[in-house]
Amino acid sequence: EFDVAWDAAAGDKGGWPSFMAKEVTEQPDAVANTIRGRIVDGVVDVPELTAFGDEALSAIRRVIIIGCGTAAYAGLVAKYAIENWAGVPVEVELSHEFRYRDPVISDDTLIVSISQSGETMDTLMAVKYAREAGARTLSICNTQGATIPRESDAAIYTHAGPEVAVASTKAFVAQITALYLFGLHLARVRGSLSADQIGEQLAELEAIPAKLSSVLGVGESIRTLAHWMSDTRSVLFLGRHVGYPVAMEGALKLKELAYIHAEGFAAGELKHGPIALIEPGQPVFVIVPSPRHSALLHAKVVSNIQEIRARGARVIAIAEEGDVAVLPFADEVIRIPLAAPLFEPILAVVPLQLFAMELSTAKGLDVDQPRNLAKSVTVE
Amino acid sequence: EFDVAWDAAAGDKGGWPSFMAKEVTEQPDAVANTIRGRIVDGVVDVPELTAFGDEALSAIRRVIIIGCGTAAYAGLVAKYAIENWAGVPVEVELSHEFRYRDPVISDDTLIVSISQSGETMDTLMAVKYAREAGARTLSICNTQGATIPRESDAAIYTHAGPEVAVASTKAFVAQITALYLFGLHLARVRGSLSADQIGEQLAELEAIPAKLSSVLGVGESIRTLAHWMSDTRSVLFLGRHVGYPVAMEGALKLKELAYIHAEGFAAGELKHGPIALIEPGQPVFVIVPSPRHSALLHAKVVSNIQEIRARGARVIAIAEEGDVAVLPFADEVIRIPLAAPLFEPILAVVPLQLFAMELSTAKGLDVDQPRNLAKSVTVE
Repeated sequence: EFDVAWDAAAGDKGGWPSFMAKEVTEQPDAVANTIRGRIVDGVVDVPELTAFGDEALSAIRRVIIIGCGTAAYAGLVAKYAIENWAGVPVEVELSHEFRYRDPVISDDTLIVSISQSGETMDTLMAVKYAREAGARTLSICNTQGATIPRESDAAIYTHAGPEVAVASTKAFVAQITALYLFGLHLARVRGSLSADQIGEQLAELEAIPAKLSSVLGVGESIRTLAHWMSDTRSVLFLGRHVGYPVAMEGALKLKELAYIHAEGFAAGELKHGPIALIEPGQPVFVIVPSPRHSALLHAKVVSNIQEIRARGARVIAIAEEGDVAVLPFADEVIRIPLAAPLFEPILAVVPLQLFAMELSTAKGLDVDQPRNLAKSVTVE
Repeated sequence: EFDVAWDAAAGDKGGWPSFMAKEVTEQPDAVANTIRGRIVDGVVDVPELTAFGDEALSAIRRVIIIGCGTAAYAGLVAKYAIENWAGVPVEVELSHEFRYRDPVISDDTLIVSISQSGETMDTLMAVKYAREAGARTLSICNTQGATIPRESDAAIYTHAGPEVAVASTKAFVAQITALYLFGLHLARVRGSLSADQIGEQLAELEAIPAKLSSVLGVGESIRTLAHWMSDTRSVLFLGRHVGYPVAMEGALKLKELAYIHAEGFAAGELKHGPIALIEPGQPVFVIVPSPRHSALLHAKVVSNIQEIRARGARVIAIAEEGDVAVLPFADEVIRIPLAAPLFEPILAVVPLQLFAMELSTAKGLDVDQPRNLAKSVTVE
């Protein structure tokens, strides 16, 4: 397993109580640095993708994104965007499951692997397997010169800077950013979106760093919330569409950092089973989609909130500024800035990261080095 | 919402303490009846699939299985089998997510929907959407004349008989059976397996009902186990490959029936986060793959068991007869009969169904009618 030189690195916390506290606040830069040099005069052009050639990118019939843990959730967010923009089917699979199930692969399959360290053994083995089976391979990686990018046909590096805390934060938003740049590049090459349509999405992406800075301002109220909830035994997270992987990532952070049973659900699943878990006092975070984009999805999630509230759940809603529909039903509302729907996950995840960090702190746990976990899993 | 006439139906429990207890024991018949008439002289021939014509079935480039709750887990099990047998990529998606994400669909896409009642509104809406987008649609359904099969190009009915208990059991194994028959029919039409290879798989399938009868014999030891665990606050489930959806189904049953925080994980994810949850006394069910088929996967799961055991977990292993490698590390071993790897889920799920039922009973809860849940979710 990978050893971080903790004592030597301690000086790099820059006054923050933990590496995670520092890294969470570096997220605006992580996104801005990952965008830099990849949008030129309003046109997306990821230089690393020229390794494939435009013709091969146009001929791709399937994209399979592989990763583990948080990286897989970044992939799930990007599935919605890439499929929508580039018109190509995208599947997301856990590396260790993909590797051992004899998957259907051909030379019009593009495998996009995600690994912060570029050394995740499960993902490396899956990439090697896919290459041997004839697929093209693209690595999304945060560490220059790591093994997975070297074993891949091409690599898009995220420029989040070194991530020391075991629980991934800035690498996650940088991974989504890189995948979105890839998706928009693919849409340009394939002609599935017009230049204007791509330009609109790029403008949304370029606006994210400032919005991330703004959403970090919720830290104080999250700290208060976590303080009150320090003896909570379980937390549920609900989301729909791109909010669904955000719910799962919020739950994973809480498991990793606060050792609390936490699970993220697609809000639409509620009636198909998980609602049986709701009893008085059960805390539930709900990621509310913007009413400006889909009044229908927004109404469905508000209806879910009413259902669980009627059964006594304590609801913490993550909702965009100005969404008053949630006010009568939520115990707490955490605001995120307005953004296009596909970009909301990059903002909505921040309060969940902060909550896990603050709850871990409130419980007196080690935020940077949770029990049983290593930063990079370099064994299978 | 769908109203079952509880009092009128009470007479049909046939001496069992609950409908669920009755329906769990009907699983051998559910599988046998679903196979009947679809294997003729050792050749798989699902008459309902002639609606598509062999040419169209050969031309399918993608299968997307949609469902909610337990039905989606049946789809996840079948993904491994269908992709392996028929050589066509299979994706599995929750109906309500599929419907609202603008998915890529074309006329070489086959949508396979799964719904016991055939009235699940989320799934119905997704099927209608897919049809309008030009996809072909196949319904797997347990209820003759229901809406979803009527709205689909073709339907394979499962013959599990009426399922009254809210938590699905016999419908689940019948759904896997129907999907397997579909996968083998597809393999025959596409020529991806030889007649002999298909024959071997069919023989495995035909042997399942007797093995299901045998595995039901674990009921007594499961009851004792559940009795001892009646104050358990959370349970984790681990599985790999086809054991992964079984782990998720085991967790869902426990949520639905015992209102316990339960989550199923891909065993390979353990090191990527969930292992932080393991503390002394945490009960973990582990579905152990057969060592006869993949010594590597078996060894990896045994290694997972050692890791969580070292951190104090109480391990309940579901393992095939004769697998002695798990004995030194498991607190309890529940045996299932030998079967080919793709068929193990149909057997391994039974102890998990029984455990959820017995824990619910031990807690004094209503096994057949858990709080907050309806048998068919006929609203979106």
